[in-house]
Amino acid sequence: MTGTSSASEFDRGTAVVRRQGTSGVFDAELDAGWQIGGGINGGLLLALAGRALSEHLGEAAGHPYPISISGYYLSASRSGPAELRVDTVRTGRTLSTGSASLLQTTEDGRSVERLRVLAAYGDLSLADEDVRTSAKPPQLPPVEECISTELAPPEFLASANLLRRLDLRLDPASVGWALGKPSGEGRIQGWLRLADGREPDPLMLLFAVDALPPVTFDLGLYGWTPTVELTVHVRAVPAPGWLRIVHSTRNLAGGFLEEDCEVWDSTDRLVAQSRQLAVVPR
Amino acid sequence: MTGTSSASEFDRGTAVVRRQGTSGVFDAELDAGWQIGGGINGGLLLALAGRALSEHLGEAAGHPYPISISGYYLSASRSGPAELRVDTVRTGRTLSTGSASLLQTTEDGRSVERLRVLAAYGDLSLADEDVRTSAKPPQLPPVEECISTELAPPEFLASANLLRRLDLRLDPASVGWALGKPSGEGRIQGWLRLADGREPDPLMLLFAVDALPPVTFDLGLYGWTPTVELTVHVRAVPAPGWLRIVHSTRNLAGGFLEEDCEVWDSTDRLVAQSRQLAVVPR
Repeated sequence: MTGTSSASEFDRGTAVVRRQGTSGVFDAELDAGWQIGGGINGGLLLALAGRALSEHLGEAAGHPYPISISGYYLSASRSGPAELRVDTVRTGRTLSTGSASLLQTTEDGRSVERLRVLAAYGDLSLADEDVRTSAKPPQLPPVEECISTELAPPEFLASANLLRRLDLRLDPASVGWALGKPSGEGRIQGWLRLADGREPDPLMLLFAVDALPPVTFDLGLYGWTPTVELTVHVRAVPAPGWLRIVHSTRNLAGGFLEEDCEVWDSTDRLVAQSRQLAVVPR
Repeated sequence: MTGTSSASEFDRGTAVVRRQGTSGVFDAELDAGWQIGGGINGGLLLALAGRALSEHLGEAAGHPYPISISGYYLSASRSGPAELRVDTVRTGRTLSTGSASLLQTTEDGRSVERLRVLAAYGDLSLADEDVRTSAKPPQLPPVEECISTELAPPEFLASANLLRRLDLRLDPASVGWALGKPSGEGRIQGWLRLADGREPDPLMLLFAVDALPPVTFDLGLYGWTPTVELTVHVRAVPAPGWLRIVHSTRNLAGGFLEEDCEVWDSTDRLVAQSRQLAVVPR
């Protein structure tokens, strides 16, 4: 029953309750406060499935942290009850693998799958200390010089409840689109923390990689970009404080685009890398 | 029974035969000619699962091409018989989603899962023609100035049967490791085609992204780098001819590294992007 007694919006939004008498079935409630565009935010759903997997694989194998997690998005989730079904695929010494399905019951009583997940879990607290990274943290102006999403177009905010739960400050160089002047570079970056002060952890990173406006805004494409697939590699337990997030795309083609994301913590460590394949807005 | 009558080594290596009376069970034979290090090459296994999914989702939904495919590697595959179990997760108008498991029976008669796959399939031949890519093809010396893997260290060749099935020509700038002088940059690139002249197609790209030597060689780490997870986005049907392949890593940390791969076809089109999470050699 992780998170159910917590005051954090994120922990409440991703709380799962094991269904009595089962080992791998969990109940959850999708809160409309995590809505964006036509459905519940895909990163929040991944974190929710990630939490159910963490409960399941943490208990079964001592592997509570997502190391790699891949979500395939099947249909748009709505606010209301949801069910998670989790299976152990394999337990190992350093990694265990699990699958998860997120389902909702439609008005006419059918069970519809929203998201299917495969993931490898481990224990990031035991991680090898060797770090040889050539990746460089993004150069961002100080938080106070970045642009709060309160300044986003009202029509965008109206369909983006979840922005109220974030303290998101975008690099002025990557918000030309808000003034009708997208850079065309395909890059959006900024500072992120949860509005209620809840510090980042590995599950929160699964949400953070999908929390910024779609990178297509910077290409002048303002429609909805449904995610086909999102894979996140959690590379370290993040330190407390602001996260820096960079979204970029290099190849919009054939009706799809990739959206790459890096998340850096307050100690300049690259804590998560993700890539998603999304549908180009019409 | 795709590929069984073909003369191509790749099509024989990824041939699947539907088991009579079943809809989603296929038999296959893992050929030792696709071995590398301690097992069968991970890209070949992904292509094999990809072919079973192609048969299954092509027939069920008219979606024969992988658009996004994620493989989680569970245990090292051995040469010999293998079984594929494929399920339809969802069929849609433009994309269908499926899962696949690759299993082998051990000497003591246990069925062991080698690979679990989730994938979204579609029809790349119907792809939208809009291309806005900022990605640039790699600058490679001409094929004849690149280094054939016949020049690789004999001890490496001895455990890399699959190199005989490739015509792989590496950029001299990224093979310093072969002379004991890795660049440290974390980049290996070169030209690739199948040795028997079989032209690339979407399934072959699933193999191509994992066919080069591990990018860790360029960091001076020469051990085996088992793949935890590999996701491939096939972005276009490749044109006939040589492929150009770039492998790079930016973050070796915590005992894992990511290996990014781009595949460019002979018309300068970015036809596949992939990322894998692999275990750092000890």
